[in-house]
Amino acid sequence: MSSSFDGNLRISIFGQSHSGGIGVVIDGLPAGERIDMEALQAFLARRAPGGNAWSTPRKEADAPEFLSGLVNDTTCGAPLCAVIRNTNTRSGDYENLRDVPRPGHADYTAHVKYGGFQDVSGGGHFSGRLTAPLCVAGGICKQLLEKRGIFVGAHILRVGGASEAGFSVTGLTPEALQRAAAKPFPVLDDGAAAQMQDEIRAAKEALDSVGGVIECAAVGLPAGLGDPMFDGMENRIARIVFAIPAVKGVEFGAGFEAGRMRGSEDNDPFYMDGGAVRTRTNHAGGILGGITNGMPLIFRAAVKPTPSIAREQNSVSLSRGEDAILAVRGRHDPCIVPRAVPCMEAALAIAITDALLERNKVI
Amino acid sequence: MSSSFDGNLRISIFGQSHSGGIGVVIDGLPAGERIDMEALQAFLARRAPGGNAWSTPRKEADAPEFLSGLVNDTTCGAPLCAVIRNTNTRSGDYENLRDVPRPGHADYTAHVKYGGFQDVSGGGHFSGRLTAPLCVAGGICKQLLEKRGIFVGAHILRVGGASEAGFSVTGLTPEALQRAAAKPFPVLDDGAAAQMQDEIRAAKEALDSVGGVIECAAVGLPAGLGDPMFDGMENRIARIVFAIPAVKGVEFGAGFEAGRMRGSEDNDPFYMDGGAVRTRTNHAGGILGGITNGMPLIFRAAVKPTPSIAREQNSVSLSRGEDAILAVRGRHDPCIVPRAVPCMEAALAIAITDALLERNKVI
Amino acid sequence: MSSSFDGNLRISIFGQSHSGGIGVVIDGLPAGERIDMEALQAFLARRAPGGNAWSTPRKEADAPEFLSGLVNDTTCGAPLCAVIRNTNTRSGDYENLRDVPRPGHADYTAHVKYGGFQDVSGGGHFSGRLTAPLCVAGGICKQLLEKRGIFVGAHILRVGGASEAGFSVTGLTPEALQRAAAKPFPVLDDGAAAQMQDEIRAAKEALDSVGGVIECAAVGLPAGLGDPMFDGMENRIARIVFAIPAVKGVEFGAGFEAGRMRGSEDNDPFYMDGGAVRTRTNHAGGILGGITNGMPLIFRAAVKPTPSIAREQNSVSLSRGEDAILAVRGRHDPCIVPRAVPCMEAALAIAITDALLERNKVI
Amino acid sequence: MSSSFDGNLRISIFGQSHSGGIGVVIDGLPAGERIDMEALQAFLARRAPGGNAWSTPRKEADAPEFLSGLVNDTTCGAPLCAVIRNTNTRSGDYENLRDVPRPGHADYTAHVKYGGFQDVSGGGHFSGRLTAPLCVAGGICKQLLEKRGIFVGAHILRVGGASEAGFSVTGLTPEALQRAAAKPFPVLDDGAAAQMQDEIRAAKEALDSVGGVIECAAVGLPAGLGDPMFDGMENRIARIVFAIPAVKGVEFGAGFEAGRMRGSEDNDPFYMDGGAVRTRTNHAGGILGGITNGMPLIFRAAVKPTPSIAREQNSVSLSRGEDAILAVRGRHDPCIVPRAVPCMEAALAIAITDALLERNKVI
Repeated sequence: MSSSFDGNLRISIFGQSHSGGIGVVIDGLPAGERIDMEALQAFLARRAPGGNAWSTPRKEADAPEFLSGLVNDTTCGAPLCAVIRNTNTRSGDYENLRDVPRPGHADYTAHVKYGGFQDVSGGGHFSGRLTAPLCVAGGICKQLLEKRGIFVGAHILRVGGASEAGFSVTGLTPEALQRAAAKPFPVLDDGAAAQMQDEIRAAKEALDSVGGVIECAAVGLPAGLGDPMFDGMENRIARIVFAIPAVKGVEFGAGFEAGRMRGSEDNDPFYMDGGAVRTRTNHAGGILGGITNGMPLIFRAAVKPTPSIAREQNSVSLSRGEDAILAVRGRHDPCIVPRAVPCMEAALAIAITDALLERNKVI
Repeated sequence: MSSSFDGNLRISIFGQSHSGGIGVVIDGLPAGERIDMEALQAFLARRAPGGNAWSTPRKEADAPEFLSGLVNDTTCGAPLCAVIRNTNTRSGDYENLRDVPRPGHADYTAHVKYGGFQDVSGGGHFSGRLTAPLCVAGGICKQLLEKRGIFVGAHILRVGGASEAGFSVTGLTPEALQRAAAKPFPVLDDGAAAQMQDEIRAAKEALDSVGGVIECAAVGLPAGLGDPMFDGMENRIARIVFAIPAVKGVEFGAGFEAGRMRGSEDNDPFYMDGGAVRTRTNHAGGILGGITNGMPLIFRAAVKPTPSIAREQNSVSLSRGEDAILAVRGRHDPCIVPRAVPCMEAALAIAITDALLERNKVI
Repeated sequence: MSSSFDGNLRISIFGQSHSGGIGVVIDGLPAGERIDMEALQAFLARRAPGGNAWSTPRKEADAPEFLSGLVNDTTCGAPLCAVIRNTNTRSGDYENLRDVPRPGHADYTAHVKYGGFQDVSGGGHFSGRLTAPLCVAGGICKQLLEKRGIFVGAHILRVGGASEAGFSVTGLTPEALQRAAAKPFPVLDDGAAAQMQDEIRAAKEALDSVGGVIECAAVGLPAGLGDPMFDGMENRIARIVFAIPAVKGVEFGAGFEAGRMRGSEDNDPFYMDGGAVRTRTNHAGGILGGITNGMPLIFRAAVKPTPSIAREQNSVSLSRGEDAILAVRGRHDPCIVPRAVPCMEAALAIAITDALLERNKVI
Repeated sequence: MSSSFDGNLRISIFGQSHSGGIGVVIDGLPAGERIDMEALQAFLARRAPGGNAWSTPRKEADAPEFLSGLVNDTTCGAPLCAVIRNTNTRSGDYENLRDVPRPGHADYTAHVKYGGFQDVSGGGHFSGRLTAPLCVAGGICKQLLEKRGIFVGAHILRVGGASEAGFSVTGLTPEALQRAAAKPFPVLDDGAAAQMQDEIRAAKEALDSVGGVIECAAVGLPAGLGDPMFDGMENRIARIVFAIPAVKGVEFGAGFEAGRMRGSEDNDPFYMDGGAVRTRTNHAGGILGGITNGMPLIFRAAVKPTPSIAREQNSVSLSRGEDAILAVRGRHDPCIVPRAVPCMEAALAIAITDALLERNKVI
């Protein structure tokens, strides 16, 4: 178990960074959904490496081949399988990591868990590259949702010391989400973008990396999606978001700030807006009791700095059982945050689609 | 789906605040495990209401009856079912909430999801009372873990504006965890406890409530527990922790602080300590790539203020489709944080037990 | 894992024959379904022991208490828990079985699996008594289905050497199903009933037991229910039917007879009947490719003779590691087949409800 | 849901008969297992079409490409994905089936379920071709089991009117299983083989097809595998076996014959054989209470005749809503039974591997 999400959608992700290919099987998509391949490719391009100064120089086209599940680009009810070939691999860069694990990376824990049989090249199954098939699944879900008036988007809230203000949490529009997504560096405020890029540039020059925070939202959601307890919206979303490497925290609405608040402040007062029930504030992030209330769904995820840095680091030699110095070779992002933005959108789109399928399970 | 956790343990939680009873079925416990009933009852008492100034005056003994799964207090391999009767119910307090939903509570979203058929008394299935069966499951898991040298504990990190320092993240001991648990108000620093209790008292006097943050940890974990992607330790823990009502955020290790950090700072350097691989710092919270690294596992959860407050609040009348003023009756905690502490421990103990069962799935 | 069915409905069955109680949690029932308690009790009475010459003299009222999930006998969306107390237990009868396992029973295999910690009284979790909670779940599902025009029924096709003709497989009506169910000994032909009862009487007088075959059907099913591969209707039904102790075979439509047939004979020709697509024959048992075709769904299950017989049998002493003679005490059915009839209906009703929930998972 | 088996192994099968490819993802295989690729290919060749007089003239190499999960032919712990390209497709043969469904096939039910969007070419996802990825998964499991002394095999028990005797159910050896598997037409008795082939030849000449029965067994199993109720060995095996198209019945041990037997006859007496507990007979098919007892595990599956026959058949036009005559073009097996033999072995090997993973889930 590990790489299978077994909700109303069943998503099985496979591949290693340097294996023949990576991909995803999605079981449970409704039949008759036409996929806009150009839009999907554009979505994947937002995650793909190699496009700019703040990502790894490794270039991959990330063009999925659809082996099944589609007839004329339309879902046919059978499981959809998409495969992305790995072409631009330089496995030699990674051989020493089998003995001397990178701090902050899964090298050591994978070694213990798999008894030394893990695929060490490029991080194997633990590589951030495995978010490409997640984005294939999420990009398809996004399209299904948009046809139903539900829009998902995200922006960078923080990179190291530079940050910007969050989304408007009560008046968020599809257009605002799309504006952020259209930018090569997805932020709301271009001034903040410059500061964040400075942070990345400085980290890179210091042979270092830097972390950040991403804010993600959905609008157009009906009230009544989700469930109490283990299958609440928070639970579903968190379960998928933590599948994105480097995520170390997730909060909804007011999140950790709620720990400082009084109930009279945190509670979002209801009011009637035409025929619709709405709330004046949105500290709940659109979720009460695990179920959507019709307000924008808002979450933030903390993304740690890329653990692979060019600086020398202290580590150990597993074979010799002694301390060792590690110099990581290979090509790495000084900041994974910009490329993680579409991954957050993918995670949210999958969770919402899963909950929509749940909601309609009536007999 | 909703109230079933379907990992290697399958946990099914049932009941409403004012139904005949609440309880849990646990399928998948190993046979031959003797349960110390006294210790279990003591653990449940930490969550039970009515014991002190900062919780609801509703009193429930919370003494589970074990209908199955045990022979002479020892697991027999069959599913274990524990039932707790609801005795001290005052349903009349809740009748008006069917029409005028409480801000911050699940009244409105449950109404939409269940088409008006939801059990509204005492919050129904959405009541914090449903954490009692979670604690039965978690308390049993805690005992299984302790026999294997794994200890779980938690403390209050913050209540409103008052906070204390966190656990020692590299040198944490079982004793430190047990010391915190032994206190009626579980904090590390008694001075901080007084400030936090002041925050609660002030909120109560203001007919209000206050939120907080809980830090939870496990020590004695072997390296190699967990999985990549959807079944990582973060994913498993988050999926269960968000089942505790009022939790709005979860972070591991450095958590959101990692978004401000450089890689050279966040990466935990490995070193050999005798024959063991350890890390100098523990920003990873004991988890790399979803898998434990043998260091203390640390997470924090944000708990929002109890939404049920005695102050008048703005809401709507669902039947009349117009704004309305709500005065909540009933008995409620001014601060749910202290009683949520054992719930966090329960959630973590369940997640670790589930991962231990996974690890040993070798043929 | 074992006693949890994790489809669109999640059903968790608990209890041992002589534990405090047995019961079931059902998660995923739609809200707003009124349960006719009298009809449910009448359904359970068909399975309950003690009513007649062909069942065990142990008497149990089998009156479930509903701890949760209902408000005014109407589903509220929260998991439903029903508990049946065990009252008429005589555990002393079973002590010797811990050492000398009954041939044909689970005593030995449970001993190996649970390392000697299994509950041996009355067969523990392996007792046929655990079909009572299955029938609670199935009886509720039957009511949901009947409101939607879907009827489930069954009859005894064979007891030892005595048999009767099967259901009409193309013209089956709800009335025919209900006529069979209304009889204390559910067969279609009363002459065959007498012969079957002779078989049971003869077995009982010989201190022996006898097996049989049950045929079960559903009418009113829409076409399009089910799935290819692992979640086909055959798969779902078989997975639940084999949870009924003593079932050793399941076949659909022509079943094993299809192994003797030509395609031109086995294929059911389609024709238009008014606006409906129907088939002239029904060798498919209403299922093609795992999916219903709108014809009656038909399956048969082989039920082995009750393994607990009063005759002396050859067995072994597990403690002494040598052959031993076993004389089974306790109260047992000479033929479990009549009481298994409602269990088959329950299994089919659960499987159909699960598939209906699946079908409607559209977004 | 449909094509995902979600046990301790998670197996996700994808593809349509004429899509770009078909394949399987297997999540949960232990790391460090070396796969003998030659042996796997030989196993797949037993299922592959085109080899002889009794199968379809469509030829496919069925050579899987492993995209992930292996390093130097050894499992690395990450999900294994195998893809088989579809090359020899003639989709034009199938166009008329969209309107006039084949009797006995899933054309009509898929049309209803997927609203006309199903892939109709070659039977789409319902094609027997999808058993190739099942055999990849099963072939790998077989190798894992053989290393642990567990052997799985099968033979044809019946084709139409011709049959042979079953396996020795108490003294079955690995050699006997391997002898059957080594034959191009896998039967125990070569005389019976000739009669069965006559049945196939006669059906083919009559532009018809013929069904049969397969018997499948495993030896070397430890006692104690499996679970009560929904996850018993019978349930697990049945759930997978019914995923093989054309299977309409499954029975274990004495199976339907048990319905004619007395308990004193059906019960398998225990005896000590050296230090081992064994049974004199094996009517239980090696399974008691859902759990293995250490005797050979035996099941039989009924395989209906291939529904695609060259004779004209009565059907309907879905577009015109009237009766129609159908002449099936395309290439089809006159008898699918020989090629289904390795599929049964695959299903059993998967079920046993899944149960072995379960058994060892101890903490």
